[in-house]
Amino acid sequence: MIKVGIVGGTGYTGVELLRLLSRHPGVELKAITSRKEAGLRVDAMFPSLRGRVDLAFSAPESAGLAQCDVVFFATPNGIAMNEAVALLDAGVRVIDLAADFRIRDIAEWEKWYGMTHAAPSLVAEAVYGLPEVNREAIRDARLIANPGCYPTAVQLGFLPLIEAGVIDTATLIADCKSGVSGAGRKAEVGALFAESTDSFKAYGVAGHRHLPEIRQGLSRVSGAPVGLTFVPHLTPMVRGIHATLYGRLDRDIDLQALFELRYHDEPFVDVLPAGSHPETRSVRGANLCRIAVHRPQGGDTVVVLSVIDNLVKGAAGQAVQNLNLMFGFDEAAGLDIVPLMP
Amino acid sequence: MIKVGIVGGTGYTGVELLRLLSRHPGVELKAITSRKEAGLRVDAMFPSLRGRVDLAFSAPESAGLAQCDVVFFATPNGIAMNEAVALLDAGVRVIDLAADFRIRDIAEWEKWYGMTHAAPSLVAEAVYGLPEVNREAIRDARLIANPGCYPTAVQLGFLPLIEAGVIDTATLIADCKSGVSGAGRKAEVGALFAESTDSFKAYGVAGHRHLPEIRQGLSRVSGAPVGLTFVPHLTPMVRGIHATLYGRLDRDIDLQALFELRYHDEPFVDVLPAGSHPETRSVRGANLCRIAVHRPQGGDTVVVLSVIDNLVKGAAGQAVQNLNLMFGFDEAAGLDIVPLMP
Amino acid sequence: MIKVGIVGGTGYTGVELLRLLSRHPGVELKAITSRKEAGLRVDAMFPSLRGRVDLAFSAPESAGLAQCDVVFFATPNGIAMNEAVALLDAGVRVIDLAADFRIRDIAEWEKWYGMTHAAPSLVAEAVYGLPEVNREAIRDARLIANPGCYPTAVQLGFLPLIEAGVIDTATLIADCKSGVSGAGRKAEVGALFAESTDSFKAYGVAGHRHLPEIRQGLSRVSGAPVGLTFVPHLTPMVRGIHATLYGRLDRDIDLQALFELRYHDEPFVDVLPAGSHPETRSVRGANLCRIAVHRPQGGDTVVVLSVIDNLVKGAAGQAVQNLNLMFGFDEAAGLDIVPLMP
Amino acid sequence: MIKVGIVGGTGYTGVELLRLLSRHPGVELKAITSRKEAGLRVDAMFPSLRGRVDLAFSAPESAGLAQCDVVFFATPNGIAMNEAVALLDAGVRVIDLAADFRIRDIAEWEKWYGMTHAAPSLVAEAVYGLPEVNREAIRDARLIANPGCYPTAVQLGFLPLIEAGVIDTATLIADCKSGVSGAGRKAEVGALFAESTDSFKAYGVAGHRHLPEIRQGLSRVSGAPVGLTFVPHLTPMVRGIHATLYGRLDRDIDLQALFELRYHDEPFVDVLPAGSHPETRSVRGANLCRIAVHRPQGGDTVVVLSVIDNLVKGAAGQAVQNLNLMFGFDEAAGLDIVPLMP
Repeated sequence: MIKVGIVGGTGYTGVELLRLLSRHPGVELKAITSRKEAGLRVDAMFPSLRGRVDLAFSAPESAGLAQCDVVFFATPNGIAMNEAVALLDAGVRVIDLAADFRIRDIAEWEKWYGMTHAAPSLVAEAVYGLPEVNREAIRDARLIANPGCYPTAVQLGFLPLIEAGVIDTATLIADCKSGVSGAGRKAEVGALFAESTDSFKAYGVAGHRHLPEIRQGLSRVSGAPVGLTFVPHLTPMVRGIHATLYGRLDRDIDLQALFELRYHDEPFVDVLPAGSHPETRSVRGANLCRIAVHRPQGGDTVVVLSVIDNLVKGAAGQAVQNLNLMFGFDEAAGLDIVPLMP
Repeated sequence: MIKVGIVGGTGYTGVELLRLLSRHPGVELKAITSRKEAGLRVDAMFPSLRGRVDLAFSAPESAGLAQCDVVFFATPNGIAMNEAVALLDAGVRVIDLAADFRIRDIAEWEKWYGMTHAAPSLVAEAVYGLPEVNREAIRDARLIANPGCYPTAVQLGFLPLIEAGVIDTATLIADCKSGVSGAGRKAEVGALFAESTDSFKAYGVAGHRHLPEIRQGLSRVSGAPVGLTFVPHLTPMVRGIHATLYGRLDRDIDLQALFELRYHDEPFVDVLPAGSHPETRSVRGANLCRIAVHRPQGGDTVVVLSVIDNLVKGAAGQAVQNLNLMFGFDEAAGLDIVPLMP
Repeated sequence: MIKVGIVGGTGYTGVELLRLLSRHPGVELKAITSRKEAGLRVDAMFPSLRGRVDLAFSAPESAGLAQCDVVFFATPNGIAMNEAVALLDAGVRVIDLAADFRIRDIAEWEKWYGMTHAAPSLVAEAVYGLPEVNREAIRDARLIANPGCYPTAVQLGFLPLIEAGVIDTATLIADCKSGVSGAGRKAEVGALFAESTDSFKAYGVAGHRHLPEIRQGLSRVSGAPVGLTFVPHLTPMVRGIHATLYGRLDRDIDLQALFELRYHDEPFVDVLPAGSHPETRSVRGANLCRIAVHRPQGGDTVVVLSVIDNLVKGAAGQAVQNLNLMFGFDEAAGLDIVPLMP
Repeated sequence: MIKVGIVGGTGYTGVELLRLLSRHPGVELKAITSRKEAGLRVDAMFPSLRGRVDLAFSAPESAGLAQCDVVFFATPNGIAMNEAVALLDAGVRVIDLAADFRIRDIAEWEKWYGMTHAAPSLVAEAVYGLPEVNREAIRDARLIANPGCYPTAVQLGFLPLIEAGVIDTATLIADCKSGVSGAGRKAEVGALFAESTDSFKAYGVAGHRHLPEIRQGLSRVSGAPVGLTFVPHLTPMVRGIHATLYGRLDRDIDLQALFELRYHDEPFVDVLPAGSHPETRSVRGANLCRIAVHRPQGGDTVVVLSVIDNLVKGAAGQAVQNLNLMFGFDEAAGLDIVPLMP
């Protein structure tokens, strides 16, 4: 049993980590911190965890995080970059679910996140935790930058095409739709039920923080900078991201075979039969990405449909998958969950 | 490993049984029948089960149900009463998730269900599968009448009060609210998204089929006929029942202690701290009933709030709990699921 | 054209007043105040009003409210009791959509609202703005206490029974369900989409501020104090209240005829045919209360189903109805809206 | 007052026509037909219309449609092409809300709709009822082909760019999201609440019937065939279409000024300020298209966001707008509705 701590346990990625880790056979939950809620029982805030998590929130100082084997940061951006170094120095491995270590180019990160980076050297060391690309590096990593939700869905959808070199990487389009839980468990008018139900809108068309992360990931695979238009939208549901991806084919290829071959051995990527339209609910609560690839009317436009649960494969589930790789567990440990339908 | 068959696998209780049984450590799924969909892979209809259920629907005749140890009926009312006898004669135990064996009084059943009963003798034999009342009888039963969703929530809420003899049983009120999945996976205009979202209504105020089932259960405990007004409502959510129960106290008693004592050893009934208001989402996807008991302004009206997931503790989960009792498994086998929140 | 001002225009009752008044033929909107948003165009905050409301929010001091004929307070509780007196002294009539003037018993009000009342003498003068009870007094009122949302639905449902003296007024039960807009447009975690969708819960069972308001209204009609258990619930929809009311009949009566007669001449109360179940969406966006009355299984329990749109007949629409009475307009002026279905 | 008939009054476009026409100052509703519901009062099926529509459904034969001035077909595809000719011969003008007369190329229509066209000569005569393009022709038309919902949102979004000749018309992309009411009021499993809430999916990626309609409209404006990829999606809300449109700019231009100029005099198209993200709810219930135009990061991709209510500007509202033009009413008669928010 490894000892696990969570910094920032009151948001949706925090409670989702608790849901997954409370059933993980190789993990002992030692501490969950919240400065604001210190002393409150976790299941008083989250009754869904009654009988599952027998802990109270701790103040970060007294949580004994340095005695853990691994610590997750389920915090806002800008926390882990200040606190990770002390833990790493104490021999604790770190998985950051925020964005602090995702972007290699420090100036680019500072531009998009509006902060001075506190630990540039850690950025250089951090491994980008997308197992489908970096599985071997993740096993040995001290510090994981867990990918963003949109970047997970978009990269997994474009990867086979870019790796195979069959699309024009200068004109990629990612039209993405996210459930409202992506906005987090923060008291904001725009995320109220009465403001976001029964309505649909785009946001951040001028620029969204996940754009540089996706560009970096795809460019690394492509070997050259890619051109990407990324438009996120908010859709009135709780969990789920649906990425609709458009690319221009450079040459003829059996797209279905390409995708099936690429993900044949991946435990958490499921390529649907030709002609399919994945629903986000088909992955609800599970660490899965389901993908379908289309070529409408046989033209030269390829359309990829990629769905994940933003809180699982897009956050906490992927973090547990990374933990499993780092500590030699079965990659699916704690992730044996059937999607909830209906 | 016991061999399990399901008759009628295309509705919500059927697919929910599949979700639960696909993870059950002691169960081997042998057959799922659907006359209409025979030959179709189950995961083609329910993509959430891809990689989990490697079966196609069978025609009932060729499903080999007689070779199973137990067969679930996840069928409309009126099917099991015709088909169960042959299975029982073949030594197969049967759990009926429909209403065929729930009501002891055949005339009463025929009045509410509008059919002539095909197997009155089986009704006499059947055990009503509410483990919190009938656990020992369930262990030895050949035939289980799995309770209805409303009856489960209402009975678990009223039981401690009636057993203790502290309320007037002539003036009980059960004001119940159900999610739309309770209407089943049938093509009906009233259950369309555009007809049932963003709206709330009562239905069946003049009389609902679950009324005689609840009355029978409560009267058995009371030792005399109870008087009950039961008003069901439809609320725009998928899963969940919230029962708000009203009774008139005959005498003073520590209600919180009464409820905690009654359910202290029950694995799937959770009495919340005094002053709580259980949310249906706190049991979403899990085999749980959470209950809170109130006495507003210290008057003589007791208000009980009781929530379940209608597809789990109100149907498929309770059926698996019954299976566990019948075959000597851990009562929680296959039911180790943390509610999905948010 | 009368000149109208609104104090507090950024909440849901404020924007709903704007929707209704922007189409009112006898009204000129002079000012909408918001201390926080002063200077911002109203349609920048509420794009639904583009082309309809050509105003910016004003600071209260510079809004010229004293030059208006009538001022609505769409503010939190505790504002109008401080600000109304100056307006009244200037000859401006006032309609308060908050609770400041609803409860006659000052001590009772102070207990439930947790404040010292600033203007007890105005409470004595204020007319409770439920036209179905107080139409004539409203016409001449200087100051209207616009009823709460639950109190409107509950009183209209119980009134015919209590006026006719046919139920036991000591054991009334009001089981009420409200859409989330009732919580207002405030940034609170509990009202987030991801916290309140796809779930159902009770709240305030120990005591809700609308309880004394309902008790006062029913007691006045009854001529003696009534006993009421009131349990409010939150249902995942935007607009709408569904009140399910229970009473014990003292004697036999034609309930359908009683209700139809009582509301025959009321323009905004619609008694449905016997056996009906009103849906909240059947009044969505409209100033209507639809009611059905049942007597399940012919017993001595009467069940009344009463639905309103909490923002219209439960708030802004009723306020406009009161304005119409006060200024001699057609009672339906500005309220000629067909409910939005679906 | 002109006399109006509606063929097929039980679907969502039918009841929406009733909502709008019941308040139209120049219209007298003479008949609403439904073969299946003949004899049933309209407000028994649609209680939202109680007190508004005092009619019963008629059988088509006995509805007296030939005595009307204009008849709307709110029917499935393939009805109007058989029935319109007799009405036109009787001097009745016809507005078809289905697709029978939308596609000029009969072979193309027959391919997409899977029927033999019954009235090709009427197709040649019919005027495509998009007032922003065909206002003058509509005034004199005997027969209107009312546009589809997606085609309305997409064409209004692309028109200014194509008319100005500033984008590459060979690589247009329309990523569209529709509420569930677009599927109609038909009993189908896929449109059930429990099947479509809290989930998001694409559909018809291989080809959707609105593709040829959009291509025809844009090609006519462009003067040459356009290349379009059209991907529709289903989003869990009732009303609303959000079209996200992508085009490649050929040359530099002030996009905001271009759009504002193009729609300056249009009563029902609203160009939002630069940087805006229109929400579908900002047009809920109203005959409006709101548009924002973006150029992310100043690149050569233009992104247009275009929202309508699919039942109003995408169907019944546009049909009433066409009626107003045909009969010389104010173009906004009966359409003076403020969007419902929240």
